[in-house]
Amino acid sequence: MPGTPPTRFVYLGPAGTFAEQALRTIPAAERGSRTPARSVPEALDAVRTGDADAALVPLENSVGGAVAITLDEMVDGAPLVITREVVLPVEFVLTARPGQPITGIRTVAAHPQASTQCRRWLRDHLPDAVVVDVLSNAAAAAAAAGGEQDAAICAPFSIGRQRLDVLADKIADHDDAVTRFVLLGRPGPPPPRTGDDLTSLAVYIAHDRVGALLAVLMELAVRGVNLTRIESRPTGEALGRYAFFLDCTGHVAEDRVGEALQGLRRICAEVRFLGSYPRHRWTTSGTDRPVPAPAGLSDVDYADAAAWLARLRSGELS
Amino acid sequence: MPGTPPTRFVYLGPAGTFAEQALRTIPAAERGSRTPARSVPEALDAVRTGDADAALVPLENSVGGAVAITLDEMVDGAPLVITREVVLPVEFVLTARPGQPITGIRTVAAHPQASTQCRRWLRDHLPDAVVVDVLSNAAAAAAAAGGEQDAAICAPFSIGRQRLDVLADKIADHDDAVTRFVLLGRPGPPPPRTGDDLTSLAVYIAHDRVGALLAVLMELAVRGVNLTRIESRPTGEALGRYAFFLDCTGHVAEDRVGEALQGLRRICAEVRFLGSYPRHRWTTSGTDRPVPAPAGLSDVDYADAAAWLARLRSGELS
Repeated sequence: MPGTPPTRFVYLGPAGTFAEQALRTIPAAERGSRTPARSVPEALDAVRTGDADAALVPLENSVGGAVAITLDEMVDGAPLVITREVVLPVEFVLTARPGQPITGIRTVAAHPQASTQCRRWLRDHLPDAVVVDVLSNAAAAAAAAGGEQDAAICAPFSIGRQRLDVLADKIADHDDAVTRFVLLGRPGPPPPRTGDDLTSLAVYIAHDRVGALLAVLMELAVRGVNLTRIESRPTGEALGRYAFFLDCTGHVAEDRVGEALQGLRRICAEVRFLGSYPRHRWTTSGTDRPVPAPAGLSDVDYADAAAWLARLRSGELS
Repeated sequence: MPGTPPTRFVYLGPAGTFAEQALRTIPAAERGSRTPARSVPEALDAVRTGDADAALVPLENSVGGAVAITLDEMVDGAPLVITREVVLPVEFVLTARPGQPITGIRTVAAHPQASTQCRRWLRDHLPDAVVVDVLSNAAAAAAAAGGEQDAAICAPFSIGRQRLDVLADKIADHDDAVTRFVLLGRPGPPPPRTGDDLTSLAVYIAHDRVGALLAVLMELAVRGVNLTRIESRPTGEALGRYAFFLDCTGHVAEDRVGEALQGLRRICAEVRFLGSYPRHRWTTSGTDRPVPAPAGLSDVDYADAAAWLARLRSGELS
């Protein structure tokens, strides 16, 4: 959070799962307090009521899960803004107590989403093992450490200080799966622009006509604002309006983004600003470079055009 | 499925949860066999291998959950097509053994997503009760019936034949939440058009430029094809392409839909057809009427325009 830096953090618990791992990549959180919340709404409420300064919750998750509830809770209730994103690879390991041979594994504890993600590996390597559903990655690790099950599938981070060996790593079927977390705080001045930022919005349009969404995208495109994510949310059909969650390149402090936002404000039933924040760099490869403002759309270009229009209006055509 | 009707159905298990309830709204499934699958991939594989004729899985779920995995699994592997959608309201009840007074409830078994959805009700009515996480709605009902916990939050359907009383119904915080399920089968002629159909697609575009998505939407808009859902899927950034899942109004057998599909085929890196099927009617209210083809875009208009062009090309300008 701008102004006073956050010191009291909440995250989607339980401890020992991906959200805690994501939170601990943030230096301020490593120094501050970190409290697990039972659910995304609970985490967000803690920030809304002032019991915490910031909440770390999953936003996009290729494993499925709590994402829809995060979107809904962000727009339902007092405003919150994203101040940071953290992207983590979804990584799973097979873990067991020291001395357990892989050939002797008859039962594997796993969260259903974890075992689903490792289904191919399980079929190839442990075709006869029984998968026992548990409620979290941390619970899976505990079940293996406690000897209730022969082994566990969990995130490497979930092993923590338990006496467990990793028998196989990177066992997820899709090795490029990631989870995207966001840090949410109460509204305040956004983090400074870095030249490689994202702006998140929820826009509501009155009709399901493709024309209405086209108009939204044109407001962005004409200012060279790219879309990195779009998601429509089902609303009760009787409500007669559609919600779209958009992530755009650029920072609200940039002229072109500001102009696009004003355009959306004019044509949409409602626009909820969900924050401008530095983009998480996935890799240092060529496909992950920041995208500069297209020609003619930098703040300098905007200032020049504004000065020109002012001259036109005042009659100084020289 | 067209041709031979499906008789062997799989659904996302366990038994006694929303997916089974959704499947049982389909007359053919009520007559056929219904087998729970442990996961969405397992359900889809059963259809791909021929062990089942059709799979009923959640596609959109305002409670979060298995949706992302359904999208991914639909496009990953041998083609499957949607032949039907089922939309169910997400409804939760508080249930307990007969004679249990609501005032004496100290523990409530619930799937974490269920208790999250009923958080406000729990805070207002059972502020001191401890919520005990369990792995499914069916498991919650069983825990209350078996006396392990004082009560359970579950779907009304999950109670089944167990000796449980409903102490409170419609306890979800958002009473308009729905889950949308789809019935997936192996490719074959789509169900006949009804005049109120949806067509589902996955389209891949090479860039994250908003211009590329704009071009996709324009192919639809120019043919009067509306969008009822759009969702981008995170792909490994290194892959350098974006996937969008679209639901459009209309049936592949309609000329305007066919022309839009051909347009997408020309401009997208890849288009995967995921089926044309009757739209689920939510209500009979005015907001839920089928949307007829806009003026000039019916099959008759297309036939007339095609005949006219043929005359032009053959020189018959009279």
